[in-house]
Amino acid sequence: MPDLDLIIKGGLVVTGAGISRLDVGVRGEQVTELAPDLDPARAARVIDAAGKLVLPGVVDVHTHPVYLDDMGGISVTAAHGGVTTMIHYAYARPGMGLLDTLQRFRDDGLEHSLLDFALHAGLFDVEHQLGEVPAAFKMGVTSFKVFMTYAKLKWMTDDYWMTALMDVVAGERGLVAVHAENGLATDYLEDKFLREGRSALEMFTAMRPDLLEAEAVNRAMSLARVMGCALYIPHNSAAACLEPLRRAQANGWRVYGETCPQYLTLTEETTARLGALAKIGPPLRTRADNEALWQGLADGTLVTVASDHAPKAKKATDDFFEAPYGSPQVETMLTVMYHAGVNGGKISLPRLVQVMCEAPARLFGLYPRKGTLAPGSDADLVLWDPTRRHTIRAATQHSGADYTLYEGMEVTGAPVLTMQRGTIIVEEGRLVGKPGHARFLATDTGHLYV
Amino acid sequence: MPDLDLIIKGGLVVTGAGISRLDVGVRGEQVTELAPDLDPARAARVIDAAGKLVLPGVVDVHTHPVYLDDMGGISVTAAHGGVTTMIHYAYARPGMGLLDTLQRFRDDGLEHSLLDFALHAGLFDVEHQLGEVPAAFKMGVTSFKVFMTYAKLKWMTDDYWMTALMDVVAGERGLVAVHAENGLATDYLEDKFLREGRSALEMFTAMRPDLLEAEAVNRAMSLARVMGCALYIPHNSAAACLEPLRRAQANGWRVYGETCPQYLTLTEETTARLGALAKIGPPLRTRADNEALWQGLADGTLVTVASDHAPKAKKATDDFFEAPYGSPQVETMLTVMYHAGVNGGKISLPRLVQVMCEAPARLFGLYPRKGTLAPGSDADLVLWDPTRRHTIRAATQHSGADYTLYEGMEVTGAPVLTMQRGTIIVEEGRLVGKPGHARFLATDTGHLYV
Amino acid sequence: MPDLDLIIKGGLVVTGAGISRLDVGVRGEQVTELAPDLDPARAARVIDAAGKLVLPGVVDVHTHPVYLDDMGGISVTAAHGGVTTMIHYAYARPGMGLLDTLQRFRDDGLEHSLLDFALHAGLFDVEHQLGEVPAAFKMGVTSFKVFMTYAKLKWMTDDYWMTALMDVVAGERGLVAVHAENGLATDYLEDKFLREGRSALEMFTAMRPDLLEAEAVNRAMSLARVMGCALYIPHNSAAACLEPLRRAQANGWRVYGETCPQYLTLTEETTARLGALAKIGPPLRTRADNEALWQGLADGTLVTVASDHAPKAKKATDDFFEAPYGSPQVETMLTVMYHAGVNGGKISLPRLVQVMCEAPARLFGLYPRKGTLAPGSDADLVLWDPTRRHTIRAATQHSGADYTLYEGMEVTGAPVLTMQRGTIIVEEGRLVGKPGHARFLATDTGHLYV
Amino acid sequence: MPDLDLIIKGGLVVTGAGISRLDVGVRGEQVTELAPDLDPARAARVIDAAGKLVLPGVVDVHTHPVYLDDMGGISVTAAHGGVTTMIHYAYARPGMGLLDTLQRFRDDGLEHSLLDFALHAGLFDVEHQLGEVPAAFKMGVTSFKVFMTYAKLKWMTDDYWMTALMDVVAGERGLVAVHAENGLATDYLEDKFLREGRSALEMFTAMRPDLLEAEAVNRAMSLARVMGCALYIPHNSAAACLEPLRRAQANGWRVYGETCPQYLTLTEETTARLGALAKIGPPLRTRADNEALWQGLADGTLVTVASDHAPKAKKATDDFFEAPYGSPQVETMLTVMYHAGVNGGKISLPRLVQVMCEAPARLFGLYPRKGTLAPGSDADLVLWDPTRRHTIRAATQHSGADYTLYEGMEVTGAPVLTMQRGTIIVEEGRLVGKPGHARFLATDTGHLYV
Repeated sequence: MPDLDLIIKGGLVVTGAGISRLDVGVRGEQVTELAPDLDPARAARVIDAAGKLVLPGVVDVHTHPVYLDDMGGISVTAAHGGVTTMIHYAYARPGMGLLDTLQRFRDDGLEHSLLDFALHAGLFDVEHQLGEVPAAFKMGVTSFKVFMTYAKLKWMTDDYWMTALMDVVAGERGLVAVHAENGLATDYLEDKFLREGRSALEMFTAMRPDLLEAEAVNRAMSLARVMGCALYIPHNSAAACLEPLRRAQANGWRVYGETCPQYLTLTEETTARLGALAKIGPPLRTRADNEALWQGLADGTLVTVASDHAPKAKKATDDFFEAPYGSPQVETMLTVMYHAGVNGGKISLPRLVQVMCEAPARLFGLYPRKGTLAPGSDADLVLWDPTRRHTIRAATQHSGADYTLYEGMEVTGAPVLTMQRGTIIVEEGRLVGKPGHARFLATDTGHLYV
Repeated sequence: MPDLDLIIKGGLVVTGAGISRLDVGVRGEQVTELAPDLDPARAARVIDAAGKLVLPGVVDVHTHPVYLDDMGGISVTAAHGGVTTMIHYAYARPGMGLLDTLQRFRDDGLEHSLLDFALHAGLFDVEHQLGEVPAAFKMGVTSFKVFMTYAKLKWMTDDYWMTALMDVVAGERGLVAVHAENGLATDYLEDKFLREGRSALEMFTAMRPDLLEAEAVNRAMSLARVMGCALYIPHNSAAACLEPLRRAQANGWRVYGETCPQYLTLTEETTARLGALAKIGPPLRTRADNEALWQGLADGTLVTVASDHAPKAKKATDDFFEAPYGSPQVETMLTVMYHAGVNGGKISLPRLVQVMCEAPARLFGLYPRKGTLAPGSDADLVLWDPTRRHTIRAATQHSGADYTLYEGMEVTGAPVLTMQRGTIIVEEGRLVGKPGHARFLATDTGHLYV
Repeated sequence: MPDLDLIIKGGLVVTGAGISRLDVGVRGEQVTELAPDLDPARAARVIDAAGKLVLPGVVDVHTHPVYLDDMGGISVTAAHGGVTTMIHYAYARPGMGLLDTLQRFRDDGLEHSLLDFALHAGLFDVEHQLGEVPAAFKMGVTSFKVFMTYAKLKWMTDDYWMTALMDVVAGERGLVAVHAENGLATDYLEDKFLREGRSALEMFTAMRPDLLEAEAVNRAMSLARVMGCALYIPHNSAAACLEPLRRAQANGWRVYGETCPQYLTLTEETTARLGALAKIGPPLRTRADNEALWQGLADGTLVTVASDHAPKAKKATDDFFEAPYGSPQVETMLTVMYHAGVNGGKISLPRLVQVMCEAPARLFGLYPRKGTLAPGSDADLVLWDPTRRHTIRAATQHSGADYTLYEGMEVTGAPVLTMQRGTIIVEEGRLVGKPGHARFLATDTGHLYV
Repeated sequence: MPDLDLIIKGGLVVTGAGISRLDVGVRGEQVTELAPDLDPARAARVIDAAGKLVLPGVVDVHTHPVYLDDMGGISVTAAHGGVTTMIHYAYARPGMGLLDTLQRFRDDGLEHSLLDFALHAGLFDVEHQLGEVPAAFKMGVTSFKVFMTYAKLKWMTDDYWMTALMDVVAGERGLVAVHAENGLATDYLEDKFLREGRSALEMFTAMRPDLLEAEAVNRAMSLARVMGCALYIPHNSAAACLEPLRRAQANGWRVYGETCPQYLTLTEETTARLGALAKIGPPLRTRADNEALWQGLADGTLVTVASDHAPKAKKATDDFFEAPYGSPQVETMLTVMYHAGVNGGKISLPRLVQVMCEAPARLFGLYPRKGTLAPGSDADLVLWDPTRRHTIRAATQHSGADYTLYEGMEVTGAPVLTMQRGTIIVEEGRLVGKPGHARFLATDTGHLYV
């Protein structure tokens, strides 16, 4: 009589610890067994994974469920790409309450998301929102994001309030995340280039030199160190950022760096080619930056890869200056990382799982429930066909966006099944999952302070 | 009408440059096409590689075809392990002519080997053999090995003659290889420990401390630098060796380091467990050395992995002091490296191919004929099943040796077909190849001097 | 018949290049000869320098002639200490014109100073003062100072305007100087500590951690690099500052670091002991910082030593929070540096002359007119008695301040004569010089851009 | 009534700790007081040191009292140069007993030397002399020298016996010193160059490349580390040696490096100019080596400066190949170091005293009796006139040699009085001391093992 609900049979199971030929037994929402040869008779259903990889579902800790993809939509496009957990940024704009915002995102997710999720709190007005930080911790939100740039948009937090936030968050053993670019200096460059009459496209990258990103990384980590606060640097885009990160690690500082597929694989040529569609911040840089970031990912300088999924309504030919920042990324992230990283020989397959599943889950206290495949883990997994050749196209993606920065990129390897907590969400490109079952995950960063 | 002799269909082709879903077309002895989808009708035979990896045959540049495995035997055991090219050490002992020795090895190989091969010349009496070095170059032998240890066996070359050899070899744009251990210092430690009554097993590793290996690496590279000679350091066994190698690379010296599967995966516990069987030089060391060597392999400090295959007639219980040095390695090398390296997440799959196929072939001037899969390359390849679980056992290996240092090691991944120049040598564990077709390969190291 | 006005006879002449037993011949305002043995008959006057050192007059590039010592007063106290050239900070406060300010300082100096001087322009309102920068260059002022701290005093320039200033100054091949402390973060710490009820004295150093100084150094040098501007960092006070400075130098950036005698010899114990008198910014730190700064001075990380002379009206027991920043330094600087540095074995005597005379003169384009003793140099020099033991006391100094941070410090070595352009200004503690002869020196930093 | 025998009045006392204006009181053989102002009435004699430096007598740990200067002669020439303690090398050639040799040197010294001395034992035949090492320790000899070069002269010790010596010496907590050059490799180069017909002078430096010296340093320190033995490297001559020394220090190994005035100030141009007179080993190298060695001395990589005084009977025009190695150095060493180092701004005056007095005394366990000026120290001192200009000439030196490598060098600074244990040995160039009062000093290196 079946004691398992499901057996995934014949595949190569990949975790951060390595690759093994194992069958995976699932009962209810969890993985219960991993063994070389599970008797098919034990399960109601057996999925043939011969020739496939079985990966933990991707934990994408950098998503924005508010633009062309709302809470529901982002979970659909994510699931199609092999992502099973997201940590969304919930931004409280000036005048908005932090807790209100977080509760609204949570409720929205519980109602519409197909996938489990956690939240980062984003603060645009630290002075007035800081008081709600302890309440956010009680709710299960332990990471807090501010911008060191975009002063003209009124998004920027200055060093006084960034320090204040770090002080309070450190007291609660949380994590501060910063968008690290020196926004006042980039604003000066922008104004200067505008005065000189340069085109918006031409000046876009030039006004955001890598040194201004590395400077902000160094500044944020210095302030965090002074306040005793753990620090997370999303979307490192430049070789120059690796120097302060390596220095911080060598000194034992609590600083953790992320990069994104787009910064590992695309360059300013993409910006030139795609125009406003490729307007993202930080900007795409050079081939040398790509290579240095891969190296940083291989050697542990960078610990996570996330998507920064933020599809916006824009066209390639839109006025570059006025166009909004952002691009769809969550559906392509595993595919692009697998193709460029594993097929390209930049990182090993277990390292891929480390930086996309295990390390993000560990950092935010979701591990081993999420981020790995082990008895007791949530049965969040992806079946991966390493031989499937296909071409990335906006036309076939499931985002609300009608563009992708990878348009036309030929890749090998594709997800053929995405499962969350034992339930298949996407199978062979067909959406099966339904909203209403997602869980809100409380993060926990106290372990960073031990 | 078939214009190809063979198509290998549906596999993932792995080279040092990356992983691709490609069919491989073979005509005669060479690869002629690599394409996503070759029409099966074009070939007389189609091999189904679905779910398999297609690797270039391993180029093992460190083999000794003179002990339990002779020229024929070593090619059999090698082919079973996915090796298709070897560079054998042909040692000229005192009183032996260098050229005579090389010719004897060459003729022996042409008659008995199933696999293509090249030769390193080994000199035990540089003073009297040095004059024949230019003739060796004419014959196609461009690498010359001496020992910095084993003085008691009369194998050691002192610094005077090592320098002399480097001088002459540099003039011919060749490579000197050295067994790097300070043999006089290890001899003193041996004599001291013997006087103290320590057991041979207990003192074996202690008398060969890692610093004496690193010292010899540093000495050889200093002398080579002075003489302008390219230098190859086989079988680096210790973390301590990486320091001089990194220093040499940082300074742009022509120094190239090898390690072996046994130094990456085994430790002195193996020596304690297997006794005389595990007597090899340099000795197996510690887990920390394993880890450091993997790191050195990943970051490019070490450029090649070779086997040092030298099976000897001995038993675990033999007197450790009298037992000969050496172990069988060639058949297990790819399996062990794949399992521990790729499954274990130490190196990427393309990096595995780099260090076992591409880099050895490049270093000795055999690339791109050997060491990769590209139009025009010899069709030397291995079909690899990444899911096959098995246990390494002496009983099932094809060496003349009745032992292996990996006895009982459970691994995932196995070769299922080995081909050389379009001819299948081993298929599903069955030997198909025949002697009489092997080619002697002239090496060429002139490119190291550009 | 005398062809020289003066011979300084029998001394050891010290320059940045070394120590020599030379007589110094002066005619008019210049040194004309240096020779082992000048005939005394050639000069109207011969000064006996047996047992004495003959040093170039100190070039102090960091002085504030506006507090207890005005333009005249500061030149008196400076001359008593062996200083012969100063570069004063002329600060244009909000609402003040840059050029007006500079002209006022220049005129004041020409009228009241006993010593030659140049000027740095200080900007408190870059937005409105930036337009006058080119005019300042025309006037002979090529260095421009802003504060990265003291926001509460409205002295701080933000990164936007600091970048703007660097842009304009780089275009003129000038130098930007910054007070490097992250003022917003220190303000947060101050407010926090005030809320916690800590005493002003206790929190003073704690609210200005070394990392916030190093951060500002890194930030300023990053912005300067982006704008292609040469950068000067006055009064480095912490070991932590050396890391970014060394990194900048290793990368070939145009960044030049200064420290002051107080940061080399005093610690927070001085602050605790002297209370408000020792309130200076950056604050005095630890013995380990002293040692690291000496090391940085010896190895070239720091290139200049200057005084930051800014005596203010305050008493030890004044409310620490309200007390003004600053201390008298110019008269003691050479004595303290000689005693602690040369007698203390921290730096060689020629290195002392390099960092206090030669390098400051070179950096600001005054060399070899100032900063050395060579034929053609201005006869600006100090006779130094290396054996004179004395105790530093406010009571015997010539500043308007009635305190010194070195009160009671026993030292060996003292100036016995100070001369500018051939005219004795101070002799054996007696003031001889008169105002009305000072020259305004145009600086020139174009050489930094070659 | 006088309670002191002597007061040295009015000078600047220099020790490794710094420079002070102090009078020095001597009673019997020892310094008993150092004070700013000793009452002249307290002493039978007062020496006026106004304008003078008072230095501890130099401790020269590298001397050979067997060539043109015998035990008596070397002490005369040394005393004229400000040296008051020497550690002589007592070489036991093959067939000679170690203890016999040491006793002969000791007795010879007690009879003929004017200065206190200790001994290093030199072994040419470790195999037969090793057994006497423990007896040498009992006699007060704790350092043991072997050569890694000069195989043709039969001076070389191979790695087996060097290791053996290190083993025994480590057991006694002594120090092994090695002449570090790879002698077999230099022999090969010599033979090669001879075959090519190069002139002896031309090939002399070329056959001893710096890398072969650095190699030997690395080898010796590796063997010493393995055996747990403290190691001393005399006469480092090359920039290349600093890398292994720095590495050893960074790793906490017990390795101590010496250099000599000749390697800091002279180059192969001297060899070309002076011919056979400048034949010394290691050879004089380049200006860049000089500079690197000064840097190594300033930053602590090198800990001592010694003379390697070994004047031989030879002429500039002698056959270079046949001429013996060595030059007179002991009389000029302090003068040359003072002029080039202190006057030249390479090192501070206290650092000079550290490397020539304090550190050598400390290393060999003679401190604080020797190497400093403190109450209780032996009254071994030098009065130094920093203003005396003179020219170094063989004609005026007191060695038996009629040459000096510094012939014609103009220097500033000279000793004007040398005293040992309260007795004046040389005063104003006049020898006053007499043999028969020297003491044999037992060294002690046990502190290196703590």
